[in-house]
Amino acid sequence: MRTLIEPIAVTILGFMYVVPAHAAAMSGKQIYAQGVADKLAPCASCHGARAEGVAPSPRLAGLPAAYVVEQMQAYAKGRRPNAVMQDIAKLMDADQTSMVADYVASAAAPFLPTGKSSADVLAAGARLVAIGKWSAGVPACRDCHGPELRGGGPALPGLAGQPETYLLDQLKAFRSGTRPGGPLGLMARIAAKLDSSELQAAAAYAAALREGQAAEAPRGAKSTWQPHAQDPDRFEPPPESALPTNAEDAKAVLLGEKIFDNTPKYAAQYTGNTLSCRNCHTDRGRNPRSAPLWAAAPQYPMYRSKNRTMNSLEMRIADCFRYSQNGRSPPADSPELLALMTYANWLSTGLPIGIKPKASGYPALGKPAQLPDRRRGAAVYAANCTVCHGATGQGSAFAGAQVIPALWGPQSYNWGAGMHSIDNAAAYIHANMPHGAAGTLSEQQAWDVAAWVNSQPRPQDPRFTESVQKTRELYHKQHAYEYYGETVDGLTLGAPGTLETWSKKNPNPARR
Amino acid sequence: MRTLIEPIAVTILGFMYVVPAHAAAMSGKQIYAQGVADKLAPCASCHGARAEGVAPSPRLAGLPAAYVVEQMQAYAKGRRPNAVMQDIAKLMDADQTSMVADYVASAAAPFLPTGKSSADVLAAGARLVAIGKWSAGVPACRDCHGPELRGGGPALPGLAGQPETYLLDQLKAFRSGTRPGGPLGLMARIAAKLDSSELQAAAAYAAALREGQAAEAPRGAKSTWQPHAQDPDRFEPPPESALPTNAEDAKAVLLGEKIFDNTPKYAAQYTGNTLSCRNCHTDRGRNPRSAPLWAAAPQYPMYRSKNRTMNSLEMRIADCFRYSQNGRSPPADSPELLALMTYANWLSTGLPIGIKPKASGYPALGKPAQLPDRRRGAAVYAANCTVCHGATGQGSAFAGAQVIPALWGPQSYNWGAGMHSIDNAAAYIHANMPHGAAGTLSEQQAWDVAAWVNSQPRPQDPRFTESVQKTRELYHKQHAYEYYGETVDGLTLGAPGTLETWSKKNPNPARR
Repeated sequence: MRTLIEPIAVTILGFMYVVPAHAAAMSGKQIYAQGVADKLAPCASCHGARAEGVAPSPRLAGLPAAYVVEQMQAYAKGRRPNAVMQDIAKLMDADQTSMVADYVASAAAPFLPTGKSSADVLAAGARLVAIGKWSAGVPACRDCHGPELRGGGPALPGLAGQPETYLLDQLKAFRSGTRPGGPLGLMARIAAKLDSSELQAAAAYAAALREGQAAEAPRGAKSTWQPHAQDPDRFEPPPESALPTNAEDAKAVLLGEKIFDNTPKYAAQYTGNTLSCRNCHTDRGRNPRSAPLWAAAPQYPMYRSKNRTMNSLEMRIADCFRYSQNGRSPPADSPELLALMTYANWLSTGLPIGIKPKASGYPALGKPAQLPDRRRGAAVYAANCTVCHGATGQGSAFAGAQVIPALWGPQSYNWGAGMHSIDNAAAYIHANMPHGAAGTLSEQQAWDVAAWVNSQPRPQDPRFTESVQKTRELYHKQHAYEYYGETVDGLTLGAPGTLETWSKKNPNPARR
Repeated sequence: MRTLIEPIAVTILGFMYVVPAHAAAMSGKQIYAQGVADKLAPCASCHGARAEGVAPSPRLAGLPAAYVVEQMQAYAKGRRPNAVMQDIAKLMDADQTSMVADYVASAAAPFLPTGKSSADVLAAGARLVAIGKWSAGVPACRDCHGPELRGGGPALPGLAGQPETYLLDQLKAFRSGTRPGGPLGLMARIAAKLDSSELQAAAAYAAALREGQAAEAPRGAKSTWQPHAQDPDRFEPPPESALPTNAEDAKAVLLGEKIFDNTPKYAAQYTGNTLSCRNCHTDRGRNPRSAPLWAAAPQYPMYRSKNRTMNSLEMRIADCFRYSQNGRSPPADSPELLALMTYANWLSTGLPIGIKPKASGYPALGKPAQLPDRRRGAAVYAANCTVCHGATGQGSAFAGAQVIPALWGPQSYNWGAGMHSIDNAAAYIHANMPHGAAGTLSEQQAWDVAAWVNSQPRPQDPRFTESVQKTRELYHKQHAYEYYGETVDGLTLGAPGTLETWSKKNPNPARR
């Protein structure tokens, strides 16, 4: 393919100033292909006839239009230095930029995997892309850029199929500060936590992804790791490669991991929204700051005030399905629940039974200095959360699968979920959000933004009884800050019909 | 009461040779009360008018007639030395002995608790009586002598209400060998493993038991024991006094312990026979030689070839109900199953998850030198097992509750239980039986007696499909030695109707 395309690009280049073009009447596609006579070189001359990208110029096909426009503005203003693009960006007016951005966003171009990295480098890259490097607080690339690295929202570009050199150059530029760090400076933060070989590996893997291929980390060769007793406060879960020796046990671990990773796909009959376990329990249930799965397993059965009874680990997991995933409880002997149990216990290998690890749950916050304020929270949200979760809290999806989780609306956790309580959410947010930039919000900001998120419509509490007031009395009065049953912006939260009314006005912008 | 009885005894004593009596025409009651003129002092003169026992002479009321006859023979032959009783026993003929034995067996007499031991001594005694001293291989007194120490079968006398001095003298005599060690020398073995203060404590507690009072060990003052990580091969479960700090968790542990101890009473709706968990899992699931509960908890979920699926601990416990207890599986969220789960996990406190303790299950045997032979096994059974489990394998009961578990027949484990397989049973028997004398059977004896026990009628395999042959093909063909579906002594084991036919011919002799 490469040899076919390059001559075409050269041919177009040859006609660069020859083909007459009337800018005013030109479409985005025409500007892209032909440029503007006497003024603007065709985009295609560097980015390829189909916007497929020609090293070192990036692939433009499929990039979010908003992202492209933003980059052009950054070039024009000099925020993103680039000898060629700065001039071009200045030459284009806003309409032209917008038209070309729309065109490339909709362009379909073949993927042209580049690079010749070794299997080891690709495997290391796959880990970063599919899993991240949580020991350094680096989330998986796919968490924001999507399972196939095809992009995750208006500000989150696709990476798959980009020329390896382009990707590596960008990562280095993020690290050195010669390119702006992206929303919240996230890319600068992330690149700063990785060494050059890691940047190289991530770029190589992303560049090599084929169309329709989901990022996936190899488990690695069979590990020499052996189950051993561990200190609960210095615990490390087993490496992926250290699966149980019994093949059936190992199969259950792998299924559990899949369900954990993509719950709507692998436990479809029990989920009622598009959330996956890993959306809250980051690093596949391993992150000690986000209610690690391994810290839960040794504590059950235990009494929970929520349902005023003893709970086995099964019952606790089933409650996640009922509330957080707004679905229904898998039976205790269902393959799905058994697999999740097995995964949880495998992650916990070596932890002493009956001893609560310090990492259990997430670090609690003290009382807020000021009462949580949803209006202040709205500003925190706009500045820190909208970029990924969207203005209406509905996250984003790619090819029908949720990439960024919904924080409210029909695809989010329901009014019975633990996360709906503002103290839980504030603690979780403070310890974990923004994804990849945890620790940047103050405690007060976390309280306020939790109030904003949890004062929005979401699916009904499955324990709903008689009325929202009665249900609040039965199940919600113990929370210090609680919006269930309150009227906010003209909507009575939790009242029958509220979510539907809201949904009509706020169609999910992210599903595609 | 004491002051009332002594004068009566003295009065009778005064008439000892005065009241004429015709031995041939006398009833057991008469001989007991009046003696035989010119020949035999009334039993009542020492043992009390109502056979209630007057220190140092034992209570005779309620003792099994067979036991009384055996003791009289032992006195007569000089095997059980006693200055007074040896002469009396020689003076009585077999008919007289038998009549008096029958009379005292049926006599109802008030309990006259004796002794003035301190609360500490009584508590130590209660432990020995209700729990045993398993670290030394000493089972609970109540395991054989019944929950109220009222006796456990024809050879197992009641102890409750005996004069403390009498009981202590007997224990010392068992230890020193001046009284025969009882069936299988069990009492000699047991007394030899206890020190003088323990013998004293056990005697004091048994003597102090009131009528209708079940032996029960106090849990002791709140322990300073704290949950801590433990080596799975040097594991010690928490002491009873170290309950979970959360009151609801502690309640669940206590309920689980109760169910474990008396399953037909505390999990009645799920049991189909009179077995309790502790009948196999001795020392309340703590004994490392009898499939300790604590060694199971850290291993689940795991794959089991029995049902060809992953099993959670709940499912494994539920299978005990379905097979070993011939009942039905408690739902995973039932209080009973949650309590047993909680009890199991509490016993396992400090064990590392996912590591199999060496004590898991029970020590497996090598292949038998000779094929297991049920006929040889019958002889082993008669010599070692009949004394407790009875000739027809149905154990014994007291006040409607099983004291000695049934090994076959309608009250035993069914054809689907793990224990029905001869290799499991042989290993279990070799490691644990006879109760209190484990280690006295050779491996071959264990194999043979397992073949005898497991070639007897028992309840149907709940997986029964179409026919006994089909069911054998589906679920039993993997066992090396298997009687399910075979015709033995004219009965096809496992065939519909076989158990009923057998039961009609062998009514449970032990239920009373």
